[in-house]
Amino acid sequence: MTETLVLHEYSASGNCYKVRLTAALLGIPIERREYDIMKGETRTPEFLEQVNANGRIPVLQAGNRFIPESNAACHYLADGSRLIPADPFDHADMLRWMFWEQYNHEPNIATLRFWRGLVGHENLSEAQKLQLPLKREAGNAALKLMDEHLGSRDWFVGAAITLADVCLFAYTHVADGGGFELQEYPRIEAWIARVKSEPHFIPMNT
Amino acid sequence: MTETLVLHEYSASGNCYKVRLTAALLGIPIERREYDIMKGETRTPEFLEQVNANGRIPVLQAGNRFIPESNAACHYLADGSRLIPADPFDHADMLRWMFWEQYNHEPNIATLRFWRGLVGHENLSEAQKLQLPLKREAGNAALKLMDEHLGSRDWFVGAAITLADVCLFAYTHVADGGGFELQEYPRIEAWIARVKSEPHFIPMNT
Repeated sequence: MTETLVLHEYSASGNCYKVRLTAALLGIPIERREYDIMKGETRTPEFLEQVNANGRIPVLQAGNRFIPESNAACHYLADGSRLIPADPFDHADMLRWMFWEQYNHEPNIATLRFWRGLVGHENLSEAQKLQLPLKREAGNAALKLMDEHLGSRDWFVGAAITLADVCLFAYTHVADGGGFELQEYPRIEAWIARVKSEPHFIPMNT
Repeated sequence: MTETLVLHEYSASGNCYKVRLTAALLGIPIERREYDIMKGETRTPEFLEQVNANGRIPVLQAGNRFIPESNAACHYLADGSRLIPADPFDHADMLRWMFWEQYNHEPNIATLRFWRGLVGHENLSEAQKLQLPLKREAGNAALKLMDEHLGSRDWFVGAAITLADVCLFAYTHVADGGGFELQEYPRIEAWIARVKSEPHFIPMNT
């Protein structure tokens, strides 16, 4: 890619890590700009006006254009690469897992990790506390679905790593931070090891 | 497409309508198979085994393969068509709106419509009742973001309708069923009229 790429991020976020991991696997250099979401740095008038009207990170800046939504940013970086299947069915199937991740996985597994690790139980609202068992159950259902899918294959789509794996890996491999017990899902654990063995893999805290 | 396409659906669902509307706009014939989600027909052992282990509709069947997740099914139908921009940035930007729809729009606007129209307030759990004002606020924030984005353009991405418009249209144009007041968002109302004017447009209740 010829334009300068800047990742507007909060580096502890799994959604931001997805974009960094995609870039690393493909050897694409990106600059990084850090915002502290706990201090509201993505809700300033400047951020909303210039970077993302939705007030969220990550946002991938390509030249003077901006792509919010982690999975869309990954798609931009990986367009035409080995991380996106060329076959239309497999492409759609990859997107299927990425949409599922945002709807069924992230709001449960990542949210519980965020509430435990950054917000703290004592600071949760009543509505949030009532959602804890529901998110626990839905998060475990998501992990069970992944584990069963991996019973007959090494990767989520096709015979090699794709963005589906990258995007699911981000919050799955740190699900213990949300109180999930990954040892109950041995095929997920084996898949996590496979992702970590990919050439140019980078861990989350880099 | 040469294989037979079957949409496994619950026709009152906006997520299922997205797939039907995409097929209609592109003139692609699809067969339809109806399931009553209120009677648990997508949670039977047969459905979970053969159609979608996640127990949800819509699922697009292409020959003997299955694509769950509405937005992924739309992507499969529209691959190579005018509804998906050829430019990599615009393609990613289209996906940005589709991921945003599943994360910020559907869980608020569609969920409130579902709770009001199909579940009934008196049947909501305490956790759901406490979420009502939060989903109301988040839904209105999503509509405001859409309205502002449409202030300087006719379509969400580029100069013509794409899957971003199709996927956002499904639950936006019936947001009044969730108690949202679309007259507060005049640019959304104008955009709804534009979508409805597209050749081969079909309404939701067909």
